[in-house]
Amino acid sequence: MTVPPEHALLALDVVGIFVFAISGGLVGIRARLDLFGIAVLAWVTGLGGGIIRDVFLGDVPPVGISNPWYAATVLAAGVVVVLLLPRLRELRRRNPDVRLGYITRLVKYLDAVGLAVFAVSGAAKAVELGAPPLACVFVGGITAVGGGALRDVLVGQVPEVLRREVYAVPAVLGAVLVVVADAFDVLGLPVLVLAAVSVFVVRVAAITLDLNVPTPRQTGANP
Amino acid sequence: MTVPPEHALLALDVVGIFVFAISGGLVGIRARLDLFGIAVLAWVTGLGGGIIRDVFLGDVPPVGISNPWYAATVLAAGVVVVLLLPRLRELRRRNPDVRLGYITRLVKYLDAVGLAVFAVSGAAKAVELGAPPLACVFVGGITAVGGGALRDVLVGQVPEVLRREVYAVPAVLGAVLVVVADAFDVLGLPVLVLAAVSVFVVRVAAITLDLNVPTPRQTGANP
Amino acid sequence: MTVPPEHALLALDVVGIFVFAISGGLVGIRARLDLFGIAVLAWVTGLGGGIIRDVFLGDVPPVGISNPWYAATVLAAGVVVVLLLPRLRELRRRNPDVRLGYITRLVKYLDAVGLAVFAVSGAAKAVELGAPPLACVFVGGITAVGGGALRDVLVGQVPEVLRREVYAVPAVLGAVLVVVADAFDVLGLPVLVLAAVSVFVVRVAAITLDLNVPTPRQTGANP
Repeated sequence: MTVPPEHALLALDVVGIFVFAISGGLVGIRARLDLFGIAVLAWVTGLGGGIIRDVFLGDVPPVGISNPWYAATVLAAGVVVVLLLPRLRELRRRNPDVRLGYITRLVKYLDAVGLAVFAVSGAAKAVELGAPPLACVFVGGITAVGGGALRDVLVGQVPEVLRREVYAVPAVLGAVLVVVADAFDVLGLPVLVLAAVSVFVVRVAAITLDLNVPTPRQTGANP
Repeated sequence: MTVPPEHALLALDVVGIFVFAISGGLVGIRARLDLFGIAVLAWVTGLGGGIIRDVFLGDVPPVGISNPWYAATVLAAGVVVVLLLPRLRELRRRNPDVRLGYITRLVKYLDAVGLAVFAVSGAAKAVELGAPPLACVFVGGITAVGGGALRDVLVGQVPEVLRREVYAVPAVLGAVLVVVADAFDVLGLPVLVLAAVSVFVVRVAAITLDLNVPTPRQTGANP
Repeated sequence: MTVPPEHALLALDVVGIFVFAISGGLVGIRARLDLFGIAVLAWVTGLGGGIIRDVFLGDVPPVGISNPWYAATVLAAGVVVVLLLPRLRELRRRNPDVRLGYITRLVKYLDAVGLAVFAVSGAAKAVELGAPPLACVFVGGITAVGGGALRDVLVGQVPEVLRREVYAVPAVLGAVLVVVADAFDVLGLPVLVLAAVSVFVVRVAAITLDLNVPTPRQTGANP
């Protein structure tokens, strides 16, 4: 079994943590939290998925709370968010009708990046720790959607993963790619990157085309 | 110590996962989620309790994400939910004033079944893994209420277990029955089934008789 | 490395569980839950932080569900809450304009005590189990805020830790004190108590002075 190198997983995690932490910070701003609330939400969003992954895989304490690089990444994301504030204000003064929608869209794209890298890193770490294939797929999916789901629940929103959009599916597909690649013994950095890019492309396509899966709305409204 | 056979636990889990997954799917319909959101909610509701149980018992990765039978059970439940849709629509056309209340009642009874089998399987697995008696009782209760609580929190509701009804109590009683049976060395399939049936009967009695525990409502309203 | 004695940790935990359980019960009353709902919320609030701590440290089953003293502490807290009810009613009759604000304030101060002892016990247990320094700090902070966060999410509120107040910071500072004390090999009961008192003082100062951290409210409102 070709095991993806530690540093490949670390790199993927750092990218995912960074973008998810920023998305968490932006949601915190939108929710009118104070700076510490924003910091906590950024931390939960950035590290939540990986922490759930490690707990499910029995790799405790989770690297999310023990690896200084991860904490540093969240801090860096926090700085970026604070630096973004004036620009968001500026943007809004120029274009009043942007409003909250701007953050919402930005968060969607940041989530797409985090979704992609965490789905892959989650599945790859599960493979590395010798979890059964099905578990690897589930762990990849949970790692990808976990942080965002925690973020949304904490601010009282129904998580993105439950809302009307193709969200969990690309994550699961990315995890499946990793597991299949491992089965064919070709799991390495190239495959990891390829899988992550695939997830990202599918997710962004879903956002831009506003691609939605069928909804039993009529029925849902009635019974 | 008489250890309940693996397949007894598996059977209990499958039943619980099936009914909880259906309840999760129905709540997803009621919450107007799309098909994937419904699938995710069914998955969380069906497997959540068992996953929490396994994490608390250190049995990772949780069988909920590693056992194909469990995943298949959730899929089967999903199919049932989709097949139920037209019938719910039909029913509503015949009887307009049924509305959402219908799903709410159905969910209550499905939860009663899941509550019963998960309370027993949770406690039995804890006993099997040699956890202390008190932990076995708590694990049984948490396994029983965990999935439904996650489901409700995800769609922004206060969990059933906190609402005005006898819900957690029968689960805890069922778990106690299992622990006591183990203490008397008579823990086997018959006892497991008996305990599950007891939980179900008590819970259904609470629903049908609308049996409520005293509520400090007046006081709660005031201070 | 001077390891804090088991009984010191147990004492800290019992104090934290007691006050957090009471705060959970009070929030349950405010949320108009029935007696069992109140009991469940008290249980989750009192034991939640420690359970998360133990899961993160791999100490399963968590002492919160296996140690009879902990369960007894929650029960005692429940009795106190029930005994408090008439007095809350009385108080309200005397002073109608107190209303819910009274419980809210009381919960804040109880949380301050729990925050202090759990931050310290969480960090100390992590140190004791040989977790890396950074993990000890995080575990301390999570142990301190976890129970209250679960409580708030369950009743549909945005957790205190995200709201406009100095909350997580003193907890993290207390955890840092413990880790530093361990590094200097002076970690013992005196230091644990000193650290807990420090957290409590800072948190209460924040409450009484209504000390807030800067909030990007304007910006938050706009983009």
